[in-house]
Amino acid sequence: MNNGIAENISLSEDGAAVVIIDQTHLPNETKYLQLYKARDLYNAISTLKVRGAPAIGIFAAYALYVLARQSKAKDYKGFLADVMENSALLDFSRPTAVNLSKQLRRMERLVANMDGSQITQILDAMREEAEQIQREDIDMCLAISENGLALIRDGAGVLTYCNAGPLATSRYGTALGPILLARERGMDLNVYCCETRPLLQGARLTTYELYKAGVDCTLICDNMASAVMSEGKIDAVFVGCDRASLNGDIANKVGTSGLAVLAKYYGVPFYVFCPSSTIDQDCMTGTEIEIEQRQPEEIKEKFFRKPIAPPGIKCYNPAFDVTENKLITAIITERGISRAPYIQSLAQFT
Amino acid sequence: MNNGIAENISLSEDGAAVVIIDQTHLPNETKYLQLYKARDLYNAISTLKVRGAPAIGIFAAYALYVLARQSKAKDYKGFLADVMENSALLDFSRPTAVNLSKQLRRMERLVANMDGSQITQILDAMREEAEQIQREDIDMCLAISENGLALIRDGAGVLTYCNAGPLATSRYGTALGPILLARERGMDLNVYCCETRPLLQGARLTTYELYKAGVDCTLICDNMASAVMSEGKIDAVFVGCDRASLNGDIANKVGTSGLAVLAKYYGVPFYVFCPSSTIDQDCMTGTEIEIEQRQPEEIKEKFFRKPIAPPGIKCYNPAFDVTENKLITAIITERGISRAPYIQSLAQFT
Repeated sequence: MNNGIAENISLSEDGAAVVIIDQTHLPNETKYLQLYKARDLYNAISTLKVRGAPAIGIFAAYALYVLARQSKAKDYKGFLADVMENSALLDFSRPTAVNLSKQLRRMERLVANMDGSQITQILDAMREEAEQIQREDIDMCLAISENGLALIRDGAGVLTYCNAGPLATSRYGTALGPILLARERGMDLNVYCCETRPLLQGARLTTYELYKAGVDCTLICDNMASAVMSEGKIDAVFVGCDRASLNGDIANKVGTSGLAVLAKYYGVPFYVFCPSSTIDQDCMTGTEIEIEQRQPEEIKEKFFRKPIAPPGIKCYNPAFDVTENKLITAIITERGISRAPYIQSLAQFT
Repeated sequence: MNNGIAENISLSEDGAAVVIIDQTHLPNETKYLQLYKARDLYNAISTLKVRGAPAIGIFAAYALYVLARQSKAKDYKGFLADVMENSALLDFSRPTAVNLSKQLRRMERLVANMDGSQITQILDAMREEAEQIQREDIDMCLAISENGLALIRDGAGVLTYCNAGPLATSRYGTALGPILLARERGMDLNVYCCETRPLLQGARLTTYELYKAGVDCTLICDNMASAVMSEGKIDAVFVGCDRASLNGDIANKVGTSGLAVLAKYYGVPFYVFCPSSTIDQDCMTGTEIEIEQRQPEEIKEKFFRKPIAPPGIKCYNPAFDVTENKLITAIITERGISRAPYIQSLAQFT
């Protein structure tokens, strides 16, 4: 794979720190961070230095290992308590994406099952497990990309939203995976990227990834999606997923549900790229998904030279929204393509 | 009327210049401009220092008068030629809003019918006509606001888009008119303002006007409209209109059509505020409306501290889109409320 993007999450050579690209500085600067303090690891997730449901799952697994190395516990019981405490802290950094808590639970289970082992042995196993989570993500990305590729033809117009590319995963990405794979195989697509307010992940990250990979892409503001669909420029919408419930309702970046309504209205297929790790077994419908609320400054001040609204103005700033299953043409996992009724079709991929 | 907004378009005392608030500096600075050069008058419209369909119609009428005063013609024929030339120039500044060309045609007709008059007489008549256009707009705003007020109840949630307030007209506004009138009459509304990318007229201008008038308002990004509608926060959507065709298709700020699709999906009434001067008698359907395409820098650079996308990225930046008549619950004019089939109901208000 050579799409011009370095591996965006890794352990430092000595294993003492997690190394990431600080995504908040893209596309203007490619700045690497070495993180090992609990507070910095927590903030990296909460301030979106690392983001994307699969990526924060991988990051959290590495972070838990890096913090476990710092445990001063002399025995297994104390070590387990430290791991559980750090895991609880990291889990609190963002509420909506299920991968974060899922991968933390996986790491916790590993440690919980190693009573009687030396702490150094447990640490080795934790590192191996975190690396395995990342390897699985790489395999998942390739498989989900191959599955998605079957849904597009050469010359198609594809609308993407937010960022579900290599930066949000480990390689290829989920919703961007088929697009990057199509490019590698010589297909020409016309990709429209919604800028994705307020944090502009579509403008800052997706266009950056597609541009480096040589994909023809056009940036639009989020409110232009209806215009480009009505003009017949779009043959399919590809979006990622932060949490899928068992009935096929999905949570993704705020604005996804609006695109799904538009796609339905204009007769454009709406595809959700959802690694099986993103399906929440404990969540029956979208109404059960907690939606993260973020700060007004992200809307009014961040990125801008001057505030864009009077100081006293209230903002409503949900980070995600829920898209109803009836608006989704298909949910693509690394294990296959799922169509309605999702309660049955998704079950075989979980 | 006291909503905290000064008259935003007027003639200077000596009549030699048009005086406007430069809307590109709001809400951070209230900066007045005195404009009399043809190029500056043209740029004031094309760079959105003055904007809003009714406002640019009024501005253009004053501008044509100010330029006519500078004519060096010695006879009527030469004077008329100068007026026609300046009118053609101003008409080229923005293509979509019909009021611009309509008010210029009205001024041209006035001059064309005064063959035989002294040039000073014609100038006096032009000034009177421009002032009459503005007076008619003030009356129109009050009437359209009263008509719109009948559509909302105390405590309602109203979603607005772009800016169709006092700054876009002369007083009260069109889509914001009923909201400001409701406030004056002691009603409490919860108004959600979409920021309206790329030029942020909703964030910069609408929240500024509502805040000064004491209206409870909450700023959202455009991609959050689906979330707030799905949460039941919105009882009605109020938008303005830059050009209405005779069948009720309307052109308004890009993103309006998307809001209309969402409103239909969520069962929220979608109201278009459209002065009769905005109905284009020569336009049968929305497909005939020319949509202005603007520069990529507005999306990628303007307002931001740093560019938000890599330098090579293409942008698609239509200023308006067309909303199909079947998505519109009612079109509110100053003469009454029009409902489908618009081809009949609109005809009585033109």
